[in-house]
Amino acid sequence: MSDQRRKQLRARMGEENLDAFVVSKPANVRYLTGFTGEGLVVVDAEVAICTDSRFTVQAAEEAPGIECLSGEGGHLGQAAERLVSVGARRAGFEADAMTYAGFETLQEKAPEVELVSTRQTLERQRIVKEPEEVELVAAAAAIADQAFETVRPQIQPGMTEREVAIELERQMLLGGAEKPSFPSIVASGPNGAKPHATPGERKLEAGDLVVVDFGAQANGYCSDCTRTLALGELDERQREVWHAVREAQLAGLGVVAPGCPAADVDAAARELLRKRGFVEEFSHSVGHGVGLEVHELPGVSARSEEVLAAGMIITVEPGVYIKGWGGVRLEELVLVTEDGPQALTRAAYDL
Amino acid sequence: MSDQRRKQLRARMGEENLDAFVVSKPANVRYLTGFTGEGLVVVDAEVAICTDSRFTVQAAEEAPGIECLSGEGGHLGQAAERLVSVGARRAGFEADAMTYAGFETLQEKAPEVELVSTRQTLERQRIVKEPEEVELVAAAAAIADQAFETVRPQIQPGMTEREVAIELERQMLLGGAEKPSFPSIVASGPNGAKPHATPGERKLEAGDLVVVDFGAQANGYCSDCTRTLALGELDERQREVWHAVREAQLAGLGVVAPGCPAADVDAAARELLRKRGFVEEFSHSVGHGVGLEVHELPGVSARSEEVLAAGMIITVEPGVYIKGWGGVRLEELVLVTEDGPQALTRAAYDL
Repeated sequence: MSDQRRKQLRARMGEENLDAFVVSKPANVRYLTGFTGEGLVVVDAEVAICTDSRFTVQAAEEAPGIECLSGEGGHLGQAAERLVSVGARRAGFEADAMTYAGFETLQEKAPEVELVSTRQTLERQRIVKEPEEVELVAAAAAIADQAFETVRPQIQPGMTEREVAIELERQMLLGGAEKPSFPSIVASGPNGAKPHATPGERKLEAGDLVVVDFGAQANGYCSDCTRTLALGELDERQREVWHAVREAQLAGLGVVAPGCPAADVDAAARELLRKRGFVEEFSHSVGHGVGLEVHELPGVSARSEEVLAAGMIITVEPGVYIKGWGGVRLEELVLVTEDGPQALTRAAYDL
Repeated sequence: MSDQRRKQLRARMGEENLDAFVVSKPANVRYLTGFTGEGLVVVDAEVAICTDSRFTVQAAEEAPGIECLSGEGGHLGQAAERLVSVGARRAGFEADAMTYAGFETLQEKAPEVELVSTRQTLERQRIVKEPEEVELVAAAAAIADQAFETVRPQIQPGMTEREVAIELERQMLLGGAEKPSFPSIVASGPNGAKPHATPGERKLEAGDLVVVDFGAQANGYCSDCTRTLALGELDERQREVWHAVREAQLAGLGVVAPGCPAADVDAAARELLRKRGFVEEFSHSVGHGVGLEVHELPGVSARSEEVLAAGMIITVEPGVYIKGWGGVRLEELVLVTEDGPQALTRAAYDL
């Protein structure tokens, strides 16, 4: 599988006249080789992992059959030696992942090689998921769903936001997650007005809406899910906002299909919130791709120029944020299929 | 306090003929301004945080009195505008923290400004801790100590390594940590032979040695501590190795003082292990600095050219790793003082 992926990368390298490609983003190293330790990958006619002696055993286990360089000179030193030894003339590197210092070191140690700044080469390749990748995202989502189901009955007045987040993350870990795919958000009452709230010492109160945004990472793949719960009966405004967000989400999901511009998903959700009078309170884009990274291509925003294709995995997560009052966000993680969006999360939407 | 820190940076900038400095490493952004959100800092005659609308409220709270730029164009766009508006000619940037893409964007948006690659400018400034910083590291260490004390009685045969790590991290979070300062290591039995083992599904067994390496981050500051526990009576070899490591650690600590080359600490510990016949099994350097980052200057290794000074915080952590058998590592976190090393951790060394 990773062999096929490297072949696809080489085709792209050919179009750009690159005879080598230096991969430094960990998600891309993993994608191309299976290796999860620290190091770089150089793809040329062959492929090599550039690491150090701490990771050679791991590399042999995770990336059997792939050459592993672990001599002196550091990861970049190994990569430079590799470029020189294969006679590379133009080597692409990942400008979004390589530090400027890394670039300097590489250039200094391989002065004859023209280093070519590239952006999103592998990220574009990863935008459509292979069936195995879809299964891995679904498996991560299942771990998160199970954790949420376990913790949900405990989310009651008196518990702090941090305690909810800590317990949710613990259950994900016990369920097999490598780690949470991002720091969980638990935003109760007025804190819900901050889309990126950090869980704090506020105790949940009866009558609160509680935004819970969480995900698991397993085998490298991420999930992402948001639910907004009510602690007790909803008042009229809470009900109005919650249902407006849910309808906006369904409106967005309603247009998800291969061939649909990603911007149209954003527009559909936003239009519904406009009708309900909350569009000014929806301050972020409606979604993003999910895979080896919890935020990856395609962006699902008004400015996105992506067109959805079968096999993409995206979130649809409108929200309404009202300063001093609170907020509601609902997030679905879906696979784009010929039959429309297929949900990868199963957490209930009941309040 | 952060005002004083910026003044010190400006002095350094003066020596390098820099009239501005772009700070992108989060630990350094926090160090200079208190701001913990996403963004950059530009230091010139004044100082500005370059972020976006998601973080303006947070910036005002965390960095009162510091100008906050949050218009269009992204963080780098803000920084470029700032450089242009103050008429900067030579602006330093952090080559180890800035991506090559970030550099390209900054240069494109501020083409008249000469961008100067720098390394470890603020890391060098941070190497000697202020009294307030020492207190913050000690506070983080106290959280970790307390968590370890709580979990330690549960570390018994039948529990998996992952379960120990999950519980330890949960207790640190409940005790007030923002997060673990690094992914905890719990390496039991033969797994102890890997210095950077990932906690796995192995169940602890009677007779195991268990290496537990953990730390808390609180208010940005990190702690770092390793203990090696015995599950039951030690056999002769276990006892021999454990005591050799402990003696090596005490030998290293014995030379810690202002004016001592950091390399001498490594040499003292290594020499003891040489005498005990284990020097080939000690495969890493003896320690590192700890502060806003869990690994920072000074390096405490054979190759280090640093000289210890009062106010530095370092680890002293020799280990012995024997393939197929297991390992022992013991790590003390100490403040360098005129009276020698002062321990910042209190976890007991009893087996």
